[in-house]
Amino acid sequence: MACSKYEYVKQYELDDRLLPGCWIVVRLDGKGFTKFCDLHKFEKPNDERALRLMDEAAKAVMQEYQDIRLAFGESDEYSFVFAKDCQLYGRRASKLVSLVTSCFTGTYVRRWAEHFPDTPLAATPAFDARAVLYPSDQTLRDYLSWRQADTHVNNLYNTCFWALVKSGQTTTEAHAQLRGTLSDYKNELLFSQFGLNYSTLPERFRKGSVVVRQRVMHVKTTADGRTKEKERLEPCVLHCDIIRDAFWKERPHLMA
Amino acid sequence: MACSKYEYVKQYELDDRLLPGCWIVVRLDGKGFTKFCDLHKFEKPNDERALRLMDEAAKAVMQEYQDIRLAFGESDEYSFVFAKDCQLYGRRASKLVSLVTSCFTGTYVRRWAEHFPDTPLAATPAFDARAVLYPSDQTLRDYLSWRQADTHVNNLYNTCFWALVKSGQTTTEAHAQLRGTLSDYKNELLFSQFGLNYSTLPERFRKGSVVVRQRVMHVKTTADGRTKEKERLEPCVLHCDIIRDAFWKERPHLMA
Amino acid sequence: MACSKYEYVKQYELDDRLLPGCWIVVRLDGKGFTKFCDLHKFEKPNDERALRLMDEAAKAVMQEYQDIRLAFGESDEYSFVFAKDCQLYGRRASKLVSLVTSCFTGTYVRRWAEHFPDTPLAATPAFDARAVLYPSDQTLRDYLSWRQADTHVNNLYNTCFWALVKSGQTTTEAHAQLRGTLSDYKNELLFSQFGLNYSTLPERFRKGSVVVRQRVMHVKTTADGRTKEKERLEPCVLHCDIIRDAFWKERPHLMA
Amino acid sequence: MACSKYEYVKQYELDDRLLPGCWIVVRLDGKGFTKFCDLHKFEKPNDERALRLMDEAAKAVMQEYQDIRLAFGESDEYSFVFAKDCQLYGRRASKLVSLVTSCFTGTYVRRWAEHFPDTPLAATPAFDARAVLYPSDQTLRDYLSWRQADTHVNNLYNTCFWALVKSGQTTTEAHAQLRGTLSDYKNELLFSQFGLNYSTLPERFRKGSVVVRQRVMHVKTTADGRTKEKERLEPCVLHCDIIRDAFWKERPHLMA
Repeated sequence: MACSKYEYVKQYELDDRLLPGCWIVVRLDGKGFTKFCDLHKFEKPNDERALRLMDEAAKAVMQEYQDIRLAFGESDEYSFVFAKDCQLYGRRASKLVSLVTSCFTGTYVRRWAEHFPDTPLAATPAFDARAVLYPSDQTLRDYLSWRQADTHVNNLYNTCFWALVKSGQTTTEAHAQLRGTLSDYKNELLFSQFGLNYSTLPERFRKGSVVVRQRVMHVKTTADGRTKEKERLEPCVLHCDIIRDAFWKERPHLMA
Repeated sequence: MACSKYEYVKQYELDDRLLPGCWIVVRLDGKGFTKFCDLHKFEKPNDERALRLMDEAAKAVMQEYQDIRLAFGESDEYSFVFAKDCQLYGRRASKLVSLVTSCFTGTYVRRWAEHFPDTPLAATPAFDARAVLYPSDQTLRDYLSWRQADTHVNNLYNTCFWALVKSGQTTTEAHAQLRGTLSDYKNELLFSQFGLNYSTLPERFRKGSVVVRQRVMHVKTTADGRTKEKERLEPCVLHCDIIRDAFWKERPHLMA
Repeated sequence: MACSKYEYVKQYELDDRLLPGCWIVVRLDGKGFTKFCDLHKFEKPNDERALRLMDEAAKAVMQEYQDIRLAFGESDEYSFVFAKDCQLYGRRASKLVSLVTSCFTGTYVRRWAEHFPDTPLAATPAFDARAVLYPSDQTLRDYLSWRQADTHVNNLYNTCFWALVKSGQTTTEAHAQLRGTLSDYKNELLFSQFGLNYSTLPERFRKGSVVVRQRVMHVKTTADGRTKEKERLEPCVLHCDIIRDAFWKERPHLMA
Repeated sequence: MACSKYEYVKQYELDDRLLPGCWIVVRLDGKGFTKFCDLHKFEKPNDERALRLMDEAAKAVMQEYQDIRLAFGESDEYSFVFAKDCQLYGRRASKLVSLVTSCFTGTYVRRWAEHFPDTPLAATPAFDARAVLYPSDQTLRDYLSWRQADTHVNNLYNTCFWALVKSGQTTTEAHAQLRGTLSDYKNELLFSQFGLNYSTLPERFRKGSVVVRQRVMHVKTTADGRTKEKERLEPCVLHCDIIRDAFWKERPHLMA
């Protein structure tokens, strides 16, 4: 066959199998989202439409890949956790990374108009991703705690920053005022200067999004007019603490 | 800061830098496209709208990443060739793979309606991708020859197959008739039974798409009604032979 | 400096750091030892001098690299277990693999004459090695169980094989008689035909060698003729079961 | 079989195949050789016995592995160049690295007494090694040029340093005097202060050792007293320039 003389080049495709027995986290990040946010006039510090769209895309990824146990998202970032014993695509890193990225991006674009009915998509959003292995349950939990703590730290900072900017400061002034300050200072600033109790902000902003599969009841009307209930496991978005043990104790199957 | 105690998990993110001095090919493939084609009633053996949409997505990727020297596409597959000395994202494999996949998928979905005005997108298309290194100019050319020879082989087969099916055979019968046959047989079959001279089929189908940057003249009308010409390098789609030397001799900069 | 124009080639040295948080097993194997054994007339099925020399080399490796928790050896093979949190040489695979191999080979040659006083070293022995990661304590224990079970299986086979050969069979006949037989058959064969109760063979042959650090008492005579005792942790060779829990329960520090 | 339940752990042994079509350089380095040199009273700045022993070990490695095209050594370091199309052990990195290291170390220890008849080996020498890929002939030559330029730079420095120390300076004073000086200064220093013309020093010290296979004539006396000549390809040690083209033009097979 005409191909055969060139087929030797296939040997250059090396194996990129990920070590068995480890949690695989595929973390995806918006590329150049500062510009993308400006272009589409995202609200500051949090644009709820944009966050909901991220959640939709994450749910689509979990619907497609049942080996994903849970996902955690904040801002323009999402982490997908594949089970330790996952054998999907032989655990080949590039397969997992590219398919998650493709499904996420495709869904984000396809669903854009639902979440931004008045804002046409003016540029193609892009995400990059990588796969990281966590060998133990503890390191996986620490990874997720790291991302959720990061969500809080960023959100507190951004909430202060945009409050200062909306109150008239330049971005340079706002950055200067916040540089090196501790949480207490920022909480106090929000409260005293802007009458804002940080802990009353939506949990979505403070804790990010956790996607887990939950039983959802579906009601169907049959041909003869009767209704039938059917329960199905579906990816659902929560905004709750995943650092403390409670979340995990209620869901022992996640780590099983 | 609240994150610091968990931040050690960053150490688990290992380096995936690709060897310097090698051509990097990122090859992307449609995932489950048989189903996707059926769902959107793609024409057989080639749907020109779908192929043009693939080309659009590839051009968008090349517009975004100037380190890509050329791209080659056929069917639901595209290969992007990054220069040997490319330093983009420090040559990190997962960055390159995920960004190409994301930009391609995002453009494919965003531009769907232009190419399929009467067919709403009924599912999110997905692509997977991988990066392969080719150390020498010869191995790179052999890689591209492999893909173009594959295009020809597949297209000849598919042209026969669908001609037989449209003429009334079942798919099983058509496969059985073609199994193990040589090019000559297939060319003869097309000619004698269907009056089709294979070599007169569109080059797009027989040779796939090659995307290279070419000088394109843009004519602009200024405020006072005069026209101004401006030349720009832009990704252009060709359908030509890249196995023989002629293509490369005309474009010495591609391998430089 | 004269080097600087060439120094760019250092970039081609890619990172080969091993994933943190995993046990690292460096397993080393004799290369072409069938020939090496023949050349030096090793006793069959087990040459105690050769096994003791392997143990000496393994102890030297453990003396040199304190990050090794334990080692397990059989025949011409040895596995070294580095702690999960070992940071030696930044966990670079080639450093660990090459240094273990070098220390082992160097010691084997250097100590040869002690164990084979009447047999001059007639060829340079060679060992190859590789590093394998085990993410959990369970997978590490299963790895070690695999090697010890392998020791038993091989030794039972070899004991039968050489008994048959020494009794007059050709090697082909001996292989043929043993092919596909179960343990029971082999035990029975040894007992009925050769009057050998397998379980009374030295544990060294049946269980291999386990090297762990143990407190050893050293008695020193001082200048004035008095003796002083000093306890030191030193690699010691045991021949005991490491598949069942007892060994691990007595030595909780090994997995800690 | 008793092993089977544990055998799953073999899956953790991932593929470490090196990219085809690239030169493989295995570079090996003495570990802790400053101490080893002191212990065995190596002559400064160069101990010819030690260098010859390194060369012997390198020749043994090349005798064992015919896929090695050439080797370059200086001080306690040696680089082995495997052909681009070498398929030895499937190009598995750990196999190549460990086997080269093992053969080198084993030979070094075994041959010690021949080169140091009056100095018993007082410690086991150790070497570490790594494999690096060079995709083009140019990068390989630049690698070798880098090592030979390094040989010269180090030797010039060390020659000055030890001349100063032998003339009565402390090592700190000698380092201080040489810090940041250029070649010209060092050449002049050797000439004016020590009457030494650097370029008349043995080439072995200034250029390192290059090992290539050359035809060597062996004369054998047959049973009836006649002599027979036989030519064989054997690793031979040269001390010559490998930076300029001449060496390569005379030996086109090295790069073929």
